[in-house]
Amino acid sequence: MTTQFLIEQIRKKESFLCIGLDTDLDKVPNHLLKEEDPIFAFNKAIIDATHHLCVAYKPNLAFYEAYGIKGWRSLERTIEYLNMHFPEQFTIADAKRGDIGNTSTRYAKAFFEDLGFDSVTIAPYMGKDSVEPFLAFKDKHTILLALTSNKGAFDFQTKMVEGQELYKHVLETSKTYENSENLMYVVGATKAEYLKGIRSIIPNSFLLVPGVGAQGGSLEEVCKYGMTKDVGLLINSSRGIIYASEGVDFAEAAADKAKELQLHMRLALQHQ
Amino acid sequence: MTTQFLIEQIRKKESFLCIGLDTDLDKVPNHLLKEEDPIFAFNKAIIDATHHLCVAYKPNLAFYEAYGIKGWRSLERTIEYLNMHFPEQFTIADAKRGDIGNTSTRYAKAFFEDLGFDSVTIAPYMGKDSVEPFLAFKDKHTILLALTSNKGAFDFQTKMVEGQELYKHVLETSKTYENSENLMYVVGATKAEYLKGIRSIIPNSFLLVPGVGAQGGSLEEVCKYGMTKDVGLLINSSRGIIYASEGVDFAEAAADKAKELQLHMRLALQHQ
Repeated sequence: MTTQFLIEQIRKKESFLCIGLDTDLDKVPNHLLKEEDPIFAFNKAIIDATHHLCVAYKPNLAFYEAYGIKGWRSLERTIEYLNMHFPEQFTIADAKRGDIGNTSTRYAKAFFEDLGFDSVTIAPYMGKDSVEPFLAFKDKHTILLALTSNKGAFDFQTKMVEGQELYKHVLETSKTYENSENLMYVVGATKAEYLKGIRSIIPNSFLLVPGVGAQGGSLEEVCKYGMTKDVGLLINSSRGIIYASEGVDFAEAAADKAKELQLHMRLALQHQ
Repeated sequence: MTTQFLIEQIRKKESFLCIGLDTDLDKVPNHLLKEEDPIFAFNKAIIDATHHLCVAYKPNLAFYEAYGIKGWRSLERTIEYLNMHFPEQFTIADAKRGDIGNTSTRYAKAFFEDLGFDSVTIAPYMGKDSVEPFLAFKDKHTILLALTSNKGAFDFQTKMVEGQELYKHVLETSKTYENSENLMYVVGATKAEYLKGIRSIIPNSFLLVPGVGAQGGSLEEVCKYGMTKDVGLLINSSRGIIYASEGVDFAEAAADKAKELQLHMRLALQHQ
């Protein structure tokens, strides 16, 4: 998917919501457990109920790998379903991968070509030759971890490196990578006060912002400091939406929560 | 597996060799491609031919994920085969994972409990709460990326943070994590001159050293600066061993290459 198409979808739907499909069999409503593939059944119901309210879906791979081959089948079915029925959705493999060059190429092919995701999240620690293999794919997007929303972010990401925090150094350095126009960045919403500095380095790049909802970030603050003329934001919510209800009404409850966020986003876009 | 057991195996076999199972269908000998599961058939033959020469096997997950569900099945069969027939082998899931707390827990369960690996490689960028969920598992080992052997290592890992390089800061910080006795570290052999500094921070921890062979590191240098009284080293070789021949003799050729390295290791242990 081109960035332009994503922006058009955001304008059309008045939403920059990404729904995280962190699907956990312990939290899936009981009545779905009798299905042949409860994880896919859950995802399908969530997607069917929410697709008009969001522009992106983000399965976190850990939740699928945790179930081994069965989990991979659920993941494959989910991305196939999205690509078949809702090709307008931007899909994110939240994998946080990163390896030496030829190995990163393997991951890139797996996520972009075989599974057909539009984007994948990548950890920056191993540097240029671990990231560039992902950037080489046309109209595919590499979402680099910059500043994450967890406490551990302060262990290394905010330490000073050559006069600026490591995450800013990651932003600066990544701009020099080949095909860096295919980069987006993960920026934790709970650090909204950092967004001004981030935008001074990457004024136009899309940011994937987790942590609105369960992790306590503020949507208003993120919009105020992070929004660009082309929006430039994807706000992710996972548990707050998909586990809004444990009952048979889980999909409608998810849609209600998504609608709440979408209305806030609509307002933010109107005041842009 | 306890660290003590691993040390005993190293002494018994006079080897601290780890064989990387980076199995690639493009490089597997032709006659295996007619097998139902060529990747597992290849791995099984390599393991059968080399297990007496090494103490560890390390499948890099990217090579398995690249083949989707089929690849996961090959991985599962490989680790099952190792745990069933060669439980004395230390097994490493080279996954380079790392996510926020509850998600890291999912990965930890998948690799340690469901697949039954002894250890997993982890990227440090997200800090404490992304690493500690792995450390919580008794007699399981978390191998943290410190200094990798690729060129991109110089992008961030060697930058100065509070008076020392980032990778040293990672070493120091990780020592404060709960259950840090379950930590090992990835240290690229091509940076053997760095080993002295690393040993001043972590004098006893095991180091997993890639890059001997295809990536050009020197075994002698690694032993000189990296070895501890309990050895404290696992030297990995992947392509240099498993692709030593493309013919029907691939397993014997792999054993020959492994034997070469084992003899060097035996010497290093005798001169310890």
